[in-house]
Amino acid sequence: MTGLLIKNALILPMNKETTWFQGDIYVEGNSIKEVGKELSPDTPNITILDGQDTVVLPGFVNCHTHAAMTLLRSYGDDMPLMVWLSQRIWPREAHLTEEDIYWGTMLSILEMIKSGTTCFADMYFYMDQVAQAVEETGIRASLSRGMIGLGDKAELALRESEEFVQKWHGKAQGRITCLLGPHAPYTCPPDYLKEVMALADKLGVGLHIHLAETRTEVEDIQKQYGMTPVKLMDSLGLFTGRHVLAAHCVHLTPEERAILIKHQVGIAHNPESNMKLASGVAPIPELVKEGARVGLGTDGAASNNNLDLLEEMRTCALLHKVTTQDPTVLPAYQVLEMATRNGAQVLGLEKVGLIAPGQKADLIMVDLHKPHLTPLHDPVANLVYAAQSSDVKNVIIDGKLVMKDRHMVTMDEERVIYEARKRGQDLVTRQ
Amino acid sequence: MTGLLIKNALILPMNKETTWFQGDIYVEGNSIKEVGKELSPDTPNITILDGQDTVVLPGFVNCHTHAAMTLLRSYGDDMPLMVWLSQRIWPREAHLTEEDIYWGTMLSILEMIKSGTTCFADMYFYMDQVAQAVEETGIRASLSRGMIGLGDKAELALRESEEFVQKWHGKAQGRITCLLGPHAPYTCPPDYLKEVMALADKLGVGLHIHLAETRTEVEDIQKQYGMTPVKLMDSLGLFTGRHVLAAHCVHLTPEERAILIKHQVGIAHNPESNMKLASGVAPIPELVKEGARVGLGTDGAASNNNLDLLEEMRTCALLHKVTTQDPTVLPAYQVLEMATRNGAQVLGLEKVGLIAPGQKADLIMVDLHKPHLTPLHDPVANLVYAAQSSDVKNVIIDGKLVMKDRHMVTMDEERVIYEARKRGQDLVTRQ
Repeated sequence: MTGLLIKNALILPMNKETTWFQGDIYVEGNSIKEVGKELSPDTPNITILDGQDTVVLPGFVNCHTHAAMTLLRSYGDDMPLMVWLSQRIWPREAHLTEEDIYWGTMLSILEMIKSGTTCFADMYFYMDQVAQAVEETGIRASLSRGMIGLGDKAELALRESEEFVQKWHGKAQGRITCLLGPHAPYTCPPDYLKEVMALADKLGVGLHIHLAETRTEVEDIQKQYGMTPVKLMDSLGLFTGRHVLAAHCVHLTPEERAILIKHQVGIAHNPESNMKLASGVAPIPELVKEGARVGLGTDGAASNNNLDLLEEMRTCALLHKVTTQDPTVLPAYQVLEMATRNGAQVLGLEKVGLIAPGQKADLIMVDLHKPHLTPLHDPVANLVYAAQSSDVKNVIIDGKLVMKDRHMVTMDEERVIYEARKRGQDLVTRQ
Repeated sequence: MTGLLIKNALILPMNKETTWFQGDIYVEGNSIKEVGKELSPDTPNITILDGQDTVVLPGFVNCHTHAAMTLLRSYGDDMPLMVWLSQRIWPREAHLTEEDIYWGTMLSILEMIKSGTTCFADMYFYMDQVAQAVEETGIRASLSRGMIGLGDKAELALRESEEFVQKWHGKAQGRITCLLGPHAPYTCPPDYLKEVMALADKLGVGLHIHLAETRTEVEDIQKQYGMTPVKLMDSLGLFTGRHVLAAHCVHLTPEERAILIKHQVGIAHNPESNMKLASGVAPIPELVKEGARVGLGTDGAASNNNLDLLEEMRTCALLHKVTTQDPTVLPAYQVLEMATRNGAQVLGLEKVGLIAPGQKADLIMVDLHKPHLTPLHDPVANLVYAAQSSDVKNVIIDGKLVMKDRHMVTMDEERVIYEARKRGQDLVTRQ
């Protein structure tokens, strides 16, 4: 049994009871064993991390991304959505190989760990390569093979998804969980969604879907089916009896919010992507107030253009204050909950996102000894409103130290940058 | 004569003609002497900076801040504006000493240089200490002693402002310029503003004022004077015949925008502060399209909570895309112009904000060898949408290297953090 002891840090347990306190955390195997003062566990093979001038909190949970799209970062910006997709993204995605997906995902995991993210929800393709990258690097992930229910690949998507779930769900010491990934209401017709739901129930997994992202989607679905996307999904029983992770949920009526809340749908809010693509502003203050499960996501790096949850927290808080004209909405602690504990719930994960004995040891240590974090009147406000991802000093996932003093332990950072740069450059010239 | 040569970097000259090119920059004294390929100047005492894997651009210009408010960073957040000011900020500001202002400003300069800002516009008090910090650290600044025209300190503010301008305008090898700082229309009645204008003209300097920041301000001024703040200022001739730096300009009618544009008023847009305090969204896309001079500012660290212009650029671009429901507004290059060249114009500075022979050498080198900046499809989009301030590697101000490989050359970083932390903690307990 390996042990890991964080000494004398400022701890943000995210348990709603205590905001912060000075203390130690003892990790044994992949779990937190003890939290307290001056711990001195009797473990021969122990790693000690000095917590002086750091704040320790649960690692961030990125509730929605398309990891390998890092290869298309800053390849087409400031464009209308359909022009961007049809002229930039789709033609290049058609050229992505399995090896590209592996290295693009490796780049995203490198970026995520270096910015304090310990778990992410991915929906993309060639998911075996994504799972392989997750297994190798030690990160935690909820993986979904994206499924398009139109065209001749619809049945293939079902078969491959089934194989993928059987091969990977619960693997990598439990760090990998799977969801089926029906892409969206406008790409998956009702009959197809029924097949997906049946398969999900047979496999015992939930769903990950894009929902109510743009006004166009809502209008098109309304025209085609006589009801909005959320109501259409509800009418199919999509939310009933299984865990659903719904990304975006920008355009919702109060009645639709109530449907999502009633079924405890996990909502992945992606403020920067929604802003950059001008999709709209999701009613997050209302959803949170009404008791919805809301986490934060970055969406893919092609529409963000980074995978930085510290930044996403800040943007989330600021966006909703100005939109509601109320500076008190979404205070710092609430946003930090979205990025940690609530994000884990949105992904349907247990024992993740909280610092307490018995919880999985997904922890980050943030260096407070920085000009922009001085003085330290309030560590939560400093984290949400002033910190940057390079302040993340150490990252522990599933009890294992994966980044120490900003050096990657489980990854060859130079190799990943080299491969991703080469493949990114090559990708945009392929015919 | 000292020389400084940047070799083989990606250069963003911000001259509207070329977006970027690979080349060298030679700096002699405080100015750029030559820009080109494979330069080999014959200067015995020359510093060489390797530009490999970096992008060089003009340093950022922070058009509006209250530097020493770093001491109150994260001291009161998520509160209604008047509660925050009356219960948190004003009572603590009353206890600030000259030494606090010096160290708070030093902290702000440390943070600004480390995030690539080479020039800032400050409005606060005990400005001798601010000027001293600017002189010592090598940064460029436009300084204004804030003036309140109500109460018994109104005349003192005029006298001290005059002394301050006479003592500091054009000093520190020309790095310090001064503006008079009438605080706002609601704190400076018309008769007082007339005195300020007369003094500005006598001294040959411009003005720095808060303008149309909140809806309350607009309504109160309308009630009191029968016209809006911008129209009131215009009716007093405030914008005529002198340079004016107007911070915020959130609530403007099309007619008021035309007034500001006609008089070439420099507008400091502070998106994060406006969002955090829920002040509103300034009509920046319209102003830029109509030809206004618009730069970016952070406002004080108490309402932001950092002084990071890379982040401010990103927030600016994203905010206006979602607000206008148009992803094409404020593209990355336009926002980068706001943070550099246009910011310098907003401050009324000449030969700043552009890479060309004869321009002041205010340059930053940003390290591109980072996971979150890989691959490099578009360096401008990567800077605006993906970079973080810790990517800034070297900073040159007025020809002098002030940060090298993230180590401060002109400042004792540890001392500044130590003093600021101590004073910040002490400040909030003073009776």
